[in-house]
Amino acid sequence: MRMRKKKWADPYLDSHPEYALQDPASCRGKWKEILSCETLHVEIGAGKGGYLLAMSLMYPEEGWVGIEKDHSAAAVACRKAVEERGEPENRRLIVGMAEQLEEWFAPGEIDVIHLNFSDPWPKKKTHKKRLSSASFLEMYKRLLSADGIIRMKTDNQDLFEDSVLYFLAGGYALREFSVNYRRTQHPEDAITEYESRFMEEGLPIYQLCAAPVRSADVLE
Amino acid sequence: MRMRKKKWADPYLDSHPEYALQDPASCRGKWKEILSCETLHVEIGAGKGGYLLAMSLMYPEEGWVGIEKDHSAAAVACRKAVEERGEPENRRLIVGMAEQLEEWFAPGEIDVIHLNFSDPWPKKKTHKKRLSSASFLEMYKRLLSADGIIRMKTDNQDLFEDSVLYFLAGGYALREFSVNYRRTQHPEDAITEYESRFMEEGLPIYQLCAAPVRSADVLE
Repeated sequence: MRMRKKKWADPYLDSHPEYALQDPASCRGKWKEILSCETLHVEIGAGKGGYLLAMSLMYPEEGWVGIEKDHSAAAVACRKAVEERGEPENRRLIVGMAEQLEEWFAPGEIDVIHLNFSDPWPKKKTHKKRLSSASFLEMYKRLLSADGIIRMKTDNQDLFEDSVLYFLAGGYALREFSVNYRRTQHPEDAITEYESRFMEEGLPIYQLCAAPVRSADVLE
Repeated sequence: MRMRKKKWADPYLDSHPEYALQDPASCRGKWKEILSCETLHVEIGAGKGGYLLAMSLMYPEEGWVGIEKDHSAAAVACRKAVEERGEPENRRLIVGMAEQLEEWFAPGEIDVIHLNFSDPWPKKKTHKKRLSSASFLEMYKRLLSADGIIRMKTDNQDLFEDSVLYFLAGGYALREFSVNYRRTQHPEDAITEYESRFMEEGLPIYQLCAAPVRSADVLE
């Protein structure tokens, strides 16, 4: 989701280092200790942070880290989390690119990766920028814990169709798979503003949950 | 697709043994010879035969066999094929149950299995009757040629979601996968009356193409 550039974004982010981390690499390998959690969630492309905030409140015992490259969106997420809900405890924000994930997280450190309404990068020559494309899926495998999973939701048909094939070709098994996720109730999973707009229009949300296939003879 | 029972069905079928075969088992292992084709298609659940007829006309060099258990639907299919289009050359109809497939086809004899808008059997305890359920997928594997594939289309979300997982769990790889198949043109694939009704209502058609994974160390 692109948004207009906000002049106040960087100063605001800089003034809230407790939430928008200045040196996330210093947390590498220590996230669960820092967030006092056993389960670490990372949302890649957290946008304005609605999902991250809602989920971190719904699951206060778990750790929630959002990654967002757009400084303006990240600043909105930061303001939402910091001003509206007081000090962050179980959540943090990293302003940066998904490509840098391994600078910030150690192998096997993440339990759940969330990809919510990621940029579909429609043009073929930009497909490799998709957060579910082959090289990202390889990286996620290194970062996920033994029981780690990826949860993906999107409204974009092309992205979803291609992503299912990316996951399967990339050595993942599908655990869940829906072509109209919200036709059944999922109280365990927060609905963002962005998502609710699609639901109001009666458009389906596509969803999947995938886990790396980790049998000894197949991988690694 | 259920339809009202037609009294003329059985007599009509009996009077057209050249199309509605009386002894399909006698063709076992010889279908390609009989239909003078190199590629054998089998549609399981051919209904009123619209797809089979259209495809057999579109691909006259290939062989097309429809299986339909409902005698009334089969009779309509038969009448359509025989009366409207003259003698069948590259197409035949078998009135019977999918469970009997191996009585009629030899191992490796079928190149493409088509499952079009199959009965979704919504109740959990009837799921094993679905034409894409585990035991059918096992049987199809035995019947498919080395490069054989299964093509499936449906309007039913539950059936599609479950079927994707059945195929993957059953040792198939997805070759194609669409959550809105008709949003792009597929002139190579006939649109049936039943399907066009969904399209007119703006409802998506779900589609997949799957092939058995046949690496030496994984299967068989």
